[in-house]
Amino acid sequence: MENGLKITVIGGGSSYTPELIEGLITRANELPVKEIHLVDIEEGKKKLNVIFELTRRMIKKAGLKTQVYQTVDRKKAIKDSDFILTQIRVGGLKARALDEKIPLKYNMIGQETTGAGGFAKALRTMPVILDICREIEILAPNAWLINFTNPVSIITEMVLKHTNVKTIGLCNVPIGMINNIAKILGYESKRLKIDFVGLNHMVYGKRVYLDGQDITSDVLNELAEGKTVTMKNIPDLVWDKDFLYALGMIPCPYHRYFYMADEMLEDEKKALNEKGTRAEQVMKIESALFNLYQDNELNIKPKELEERGGAYYSDAAVSLISAIYNDKEEIHTVNIHNNGAVLGLEQDVVVEINAVIGKSGAKGIATGKLPTNIKGLIQTVKAYELLTVEAGMSGDYNTALMALVSNPLVPSIKVAKKVLNDILIENANNLPQFNK
Amino acid sequence: MENGLKITVIGGGSSYTPELIEGLITRANELPVKEIHLVDIEEGKKKLNVIFELTRRMIKKAGLKTQVYQTVDRKKAIKDSDFILTQIRVGGLKARALDEKIPLKYNMIGQETTGAGGFAKALRTMPVILDICREIEILAPNAWLINFTNPVSIITEMVLKHTNVKTIGLCNVPIGMINNIAKILGYESKRLKIDFVGLNHMVYGKRVYLDGQDITSDVLNELAEGKTVTMKNIPDLVWDKDFLYALGMIPCPYHRYFYMADEMLEDEKKALNEKGTRAEQVMKIESALFNLYQDNELNIKPKELEERGGAYYSDAAVSLISAIYNDKEEIHTVNIHNNGAVLGLEQDVVVEINAVIGKSGAKGIATGKLPTNIKGLIQTVKAYELLTVEAGMSGDYNTALMALVSNPLVPSIKVAKKVLNDILIENANNLPQFNK
Amino acid sequence: MENGLKITVIGGGSSYTPELIEGLITRANELPVKEIHLVDIEEGKKKLNVIFELTRRMIKKAGLKTQVYQTVDRKKAIKDSDFILTQIRVGGLKARALDEKIPLKYNMIGQETTGAGGFAKALRTMPVILDICREIEILAPNAWLINFTNPVSIITEMVLKHTNVKTIGLCNVPIGMINNIAKILGYESKRLKIDFVGLNHMVYGKRVYLDGQDITSDVLNELAEGKTVTMKNIPDLVWDKDFLYALGMIPCPYHRYFYMADEMLEDEKKALNEKGTRAEQVMKIESALFNLYQDNELNIKPKELEERGGAYYSDAAVSLISAIYNDKEEIHTVNIHNNGAVLGLEQDVVVEINAVIGKSGAKGIATGKLPTNIKGLIQTVKAYELLTVEAGMSGDYNTALMALVSNPLVPSIKVAKKVLNDILIENANNLPQFNK
Amino acid sequence: MENGLKITVIGGGSSYTPELIEGLITRANELPVKEIHLVDIEEGKKKLNVIFELTRRMIKKAGLKTQVYQTVDRKKAIKDSDFILTQIRVGGLKARALDEKIPLKYNMIGQETTGAGGFAKALRTMPVILDICREIEILAPNAWLINFTNPVSIITEMVLKHTNVKTIGLCNVPIGMINNIAKILGYESKRLKIDFVGLNHMVYGKRVYLDGQDITSDVLNELAEGKTVTMKNIPDLVWDKDFLYALGMIPCPYHRYFYMADEMLEDEKKALNEKGTRAEQVMKIESALFNLYQDNELNIKPKELEERGGAYYSDAAVSLISAIYNDKEEIHTVNIHNNGAVLGLEQDVVVEINAVIGKSGAKGIATGKLPTNIKGLIQTVKAYELLTVEAGMSGDYNTALMALVSNPLVPSIKVAKKVLNDILIENANNLPQFNK
Repeated sequence: MENGLKITVIGGGSSYTPELIEGLITRANELPVKEIHLVDIEEGKKKLNVIFELTRRMIKKAGLKTQVYQTVDRKKAIKDSDFILTQIRVGGLKARALDEKIPLKYNMIGQETTGAGGFAKALRTMPVILDICREIEILAPNAWLINFTNPVSIITEMVLKHTNVKTIGLCNVPIGMINNIAKILGYESKRLKIDFVGLNHMVYGKRVYLDGQDITSDVLNELAEGKTVTMKNIPDLVWDKDFLYALGMIPCPYHRYFYMADEMLEDEKKALNEKGTRAEQVMKIESALFNLYQDNELNIKPKELEERGGAYYSDAAVSLISAIYNDKEEIHTVNIHNNGAVLGLEQDVVVEINAVIGKSGAKGIATGKLPTNIKGLIQTVKAYELLTVEAGMSGDYNTALMALVSNPLVPSIKVAKKVLNDILIENANNLPQFNK
Repeated sequence: MENGLKITVIGGGSSYTPELIEGLITRANELPVKEIHLVDIEEGKKKLNVIFELTRRMIKKAGLKTQVYQTVDRKKAIKDSDFILTQIRVGGLKARALDEKIPLKYNMIGQETTGAGGFAKALRTMPVILDICREIEILAPNAWLINFTNPVSIITEMVLKHTNVKTIGLCNVPIGMINNIAKILGYESKRLKIDFVGLNHMVYGKRVYLDGQDITSDVLNELAEGKTVTMKNIPDLVWDKDFLYALGMIPCPYHRYFYMADEMLEDEKKALNEKGTRAEQVMKIESALFNLYQDNELNIKPKELEERGGAYYSDAAVSLISAIYNDKEEIHTVNIHNNGAVLGLEQDVVVEINAVIGKSGAKGIATGKLPTNIKGLIQTVKAYELLTVEAGMSGDYNTALMALVSNPLVPSIKVAKKVLNDILIENANNLPQFNK
Repeated sequence: MENGLKITVIGGGSSYTPELIEGLITRANELPVKEIHLVDIEEGKKKLNVIFELTRRMIKKAGLKTQVYQTVDRKKAIKDSDFILTQIRVGGLKARALDEKIPLKYNMIGQETTGAGGFAKALRTMPVILDICREIEILAPNAWLINFTNPVSIITEMVLKHTNVKTIGLCNVPIGMINNIAKILGYESKRLKIDFVGLNHMVYGKRVYLDGQDITSDVLNELAEGKTVTMKNIPDLVWDKDFLYALGMIPCPYHRYFYMADEMLEDEKKALNEKGTRAEQVMKIESALFNLYQDNELNIKPKELEERGGAYYSDAAVSLISAIYNDKEEIHTVNIHNNGAVLGLEQDVVVEINAVIGKSGAKGIATGKLPTNIKGLIQTVKAYELLTVEAGMSGDYNTALMALVSNPLVPSIKVAKKVLNDILIENANNLPQFNK
Repeated sequence: MENGLKITVIGGGSSYTPELIEGLITRANELPVKEIHLVDIEEGKKKLNVIFELTRRMIKKAGLKTQVYQTVDRKKAIKDSDFILTQIRVGGLKARALDEKIPLKYNMIGQETTGAGGFAKALRTMPVILDICREIEILAPNAWLINFTNPVSIITEMVLKHTNVKTIGLCNVPIGMINNIAKILGYESKRLKIDFVGLNHMVYGKRVYLDGQDITSDVLNELAEGKTVTMKNIPDLVWDKDFLYALGMIPCPYHRYFYMADEMLEDEKKALNEKGTRAEQVMKIESALFNLYQDNELNIKPKELEERGGAYYSDAAVSLISAIYNDKEEIHTVNIHNNGAVLGLEQDVVVEINAVIGKSGAKGIATGKLPTNIKGLIQTVKAYELLTVEAGMSGDYNTALMALVSNPLVPSIKVAKKVLNDILIENANNLPQFNK
């Protein structure tokens, strides 16, 4: 890291990349980036090139000397990197559309990170991330893998269990919750802090603080009156008041898929009829974005990107990298080994919690015993995740079935088998482990 | 216990009692029972008397000197008892019918021990058992409370957490599984043993042994070919073959409500149309049984009782009492404090496991870490049970809502509220804790 | 805290107080202290007055408006305090001299915080701190009790187990280790960080970082070559090289009493002959300090105070208070509930670890499983501490005996009884719980 | 096991063997032994032959058809064995004499299973047992290794951690305690049961039952009045009354080395002067025994063997084998994986507890949380044992040093190094792992 950082972005051709580049530019004073390597696959070359050119224009406009590279030679890019970011989508948006549609056939939530859809995505993604990790082990053993690729919890679990790569799993949900709540209450985000506990896309805000003062009950009151905390891609159904007080914590937007499965399903079906799957909507947004990106005059992140859903991505990723590089001992919400921080889960599983971030990585902050009212759901989803890692590594049909059956969004063995069979057939090209 | 045992049966007017009496008669040589006290409530006096007279005839026919008493003065019966058995049904079969019907309105399993129905039954039963325990604490502090009253897991949890009564929760499911499997394989039951782990009505047979030899995979093969292990009151849907091999253990009959919720629901709806609720069927059976019981010539347990569903009840209860009294150090499957026997659940919660039974009570046999493929479901149901105990003790609406939301058979907050409101209204007379 | 803080110092007449006052003055810009209340007991009135006058002169010289009070009415001082610091010495230096002498009679380390001497001090101190806590519960329920009174581990354990007072136990050993190692290596202290794990006076530096880079092995090399990390009051015997490498961590100065018990004992015996007990030396130093303090011209902390042994006390205490008040989310090494941060100890015991400090208190950083090579000693000392809390609360002779027998520095039951009997007789006036 | 058992005794030339043979003869009706293979090393051939001939005479006199073999070809004997017993003494009694003498040089207990002596024995024994296990893995993978070789705790820990051999560690201390207490109280042994918890030679009787009734306090009263529970080889110093009541449990004879280290050391020194080491005494006893054994007329176990110290060895070993073979589900006290049975120790370490013994092996009975008054010592000794396994496997000097420093009987690093250096030199021939 002596003479500036080498940062490699796998899935560099993503429409999100300008957000990341903007973040690197904003923090240029504290993060001396020497090289940015944008990597993508053969099929993504065209988009990669668009992003590459835009990135160069952005860097130039910012007056930085950072070198930008594009390549489909992943190994070359990985070699000697300091930070490697993965933002890949195996099978592309077409596969995502399937993740959203297949479960709906069986009256289940179709969603790219939870339920049967997230399961399919996990199976597709695991072999690719595993390959990447094997390369990192050899070519950049000291690099940090900052993983944004969903389902973050499962991918991070796999990397920590089956490779020697140093990794931190990252998501924009926690930072989004802080910003949303700040907006609801009318405060600046930086005055708010939340004690998070749970798993990725299954994280609870246990306590909310304003300038260090516990204001959790104020926040619950606001939510009880109908204010919502959500993300671009999740319908903002209002939480039941009694439930909120019974919970005594702030649910994350994704919790709606579990606690309001019926309404979310209705909503999804309606949306499908009206505007197609979210994947299909995103295809349109992406297409429009790439049109913008190709504009040779464009040399900043266009506003339209915010529509895309990945708000705060840059904030989360670049500030994490900076906290590591500058040994800041700052608190971030990350996916790391439990290590005793969450009592009620095994010490060697991945959790999403607050952690102190510094040069030596992330050190989780102890949260004590899981409260009984969230314990069961978290424990169940963790069991599902562990079984999915096992299934994704082994390609074993029965383990995959067991994983699906263990998912709270899958109602029965019968349905699990149907959806599993569909998933295996429809994703066959991207599931080498099941086609040995 | 010096001059013979005093055994008190609360809910003595139950149609099951002759089964128990038969058990006591069969083991008269090892269990010197001096007095049997049959206790029931005012409304049950008539049935109580029928049972009392039949019991006296059975005892007489057996040539025993045991004194039999009937009373509605519970305290008098409890005083100085050695063993107290509870087999009560708060609200009677009418309440059970509601437990079976209310959830069905919302497209959920209606069942008296699991799901929303079991939840309602738990709320009704807790105050009564708590009163009984307060009496035992004062009038018979050394007595053993052998609790058969459902939901056994929740009731035992409450007694161990909130009273000083020595209790063991008992169920005929484990012994039924052994007998069923023995029948399937064509062996004598006594040659079979099973390592059980889980919770009441949520127990798995981890390993099955024939004369000490592990034959689990043989049993799985039989089940995979369509043989079923079930109880009188549970439809014997066949288990999916792939699921069974993925599970690698023997599910209990009640597991169908969780793993085959959709088919069970269909079955239940169909049954309701064809023959009414199970409660209604039982009312008929009971009525017929009591007709039989009134026959002054009858002095043995009539065969027809076996239709009733409580097979092996006598075996389980009387052999447990005998194992305690005679300090047998025999292995029974019981509901007791975890104490480390099941890693993955807290040490102070109730589990259903094999235990060594002797004069000083039950000592659980360590089962190690919960396997990942059953962990989530068990942990979730245990969290639900703990919340139900909390709700049943406090009468707090929000806690009750949280408990229901945490139950895997309840699909959403919305449905949970509806069913909770119905339960509170329909059972109002039997829920003093919610009507303070 | 709106209009400035009320800080109460119990044991305000201590010779250490000027160090604390200096700290408050240095941080006046971030810590708006409105009132300082110095409390002491009747017998300490004279010293209290000396300190009070010096404090006033120091505050005046610093140009601050902080009001300073002295009183023997503890309740009045506690009322509505924001921070309460305890730096008491029950029985005074005379009692300390006994703690140092009695164990030596039986060929054991005589030390005021570890071994039998620390045990005696714990028994004397517990009733007084308990009284203080009962007053805080009523008169200042929101106050933070910053406890410096030794043995910090046992006192904090008692406060957290038996009272509702918010407390953090604090010690200058961790900060001293950082400063010492920085000096050895020739770096500024603030560039060094250490991952601490263990108990008070039984804490290990697991990893040492320079600007975030792990330099533990460099530090071990320095220590292996004879550099020492110690405190004023502990002989700086050199650590065995092979042991250091086997340990792979940095022991704290007090660890010498456990790992080099034989040499430390010899050293202590020699010191006793040559210069009396440490208590006796301190009496002389104190006497000299108070002579200085009385000088009406003196309006700063005199340099001579540093000889006294409590270096970094001000740093540790005032920076902790400031981190709380200013919600800094800074990392300090403190004594708090384990809460899962140290796997291998129960979650509800007190440990000394790094924690994030903010307005809502201290949140421990998870350290994972205790390494096997330090586990036994830490677990044993924790068991000793828990038994001592039990003995100190109950005044039960047998529990006190069990506590002493469990202390690694007590060689046998026989010796434990002798030393316990001596302790109970010699400290009778200060052990009300044993003289009920 | 179809046509009778093949039992192999490694260290068959031991003077204890006739005790074992007697046990097999006594239980011939329940244990159909087809072949007994006595294995020993080249140097032990002569003794082996004496034992072989005596065994043959004993078998013949008993009228059994069991075939007896003697051999130095260990692999041949192991092949297809059903049960393999190890009762070896690496380095013979000469090495034991060193284990007893070396620590005494440094004023420490010299004992063959605890302290520095036991440590030396562990290092010598581990490589040999490891070799045996490697052979069992290949030649008799279904065999049970019943390990009597000391230190049983460490050896069993190593076998379970580093091999795939099914093993149970066994010791005559628990059965000896039951028999001793029965004698003190004047009851038949079979009426007494004890809940044991701890480690080998570090086991406590938590509760004692007579016919199932808790009589622990009666036993404590007897011990408090001076009755002693001991073994042939351990001086029967009387336990301090107050300590016993503080403990509230029954210590094992070996606990004297820890709780009465000073008196035991004095006793040992005195004994050394008067009659030499225990090893030297045993040499004489052995020599006398072998003289007896050679008598061609002798065809039963001679009474004199009881002097030797291994009372109840036959009882413990043969009844364990029978419980396995006959799937008895009987309770024995054994050394097995914790598995949650002892909360306060990791689940994958070896503990000495009561377990249910059947064909599938030993299932530990849950004992709950370790009581605080024994927790520290047990946890420390377990940490020492784990470090010793690590040192014995790796041959690493520093790990060996760390292990010794962690032993409660070793007072300091300084002494640990001295004794370690002596051990490594004096045992060099038997420590291949340290001489790579």
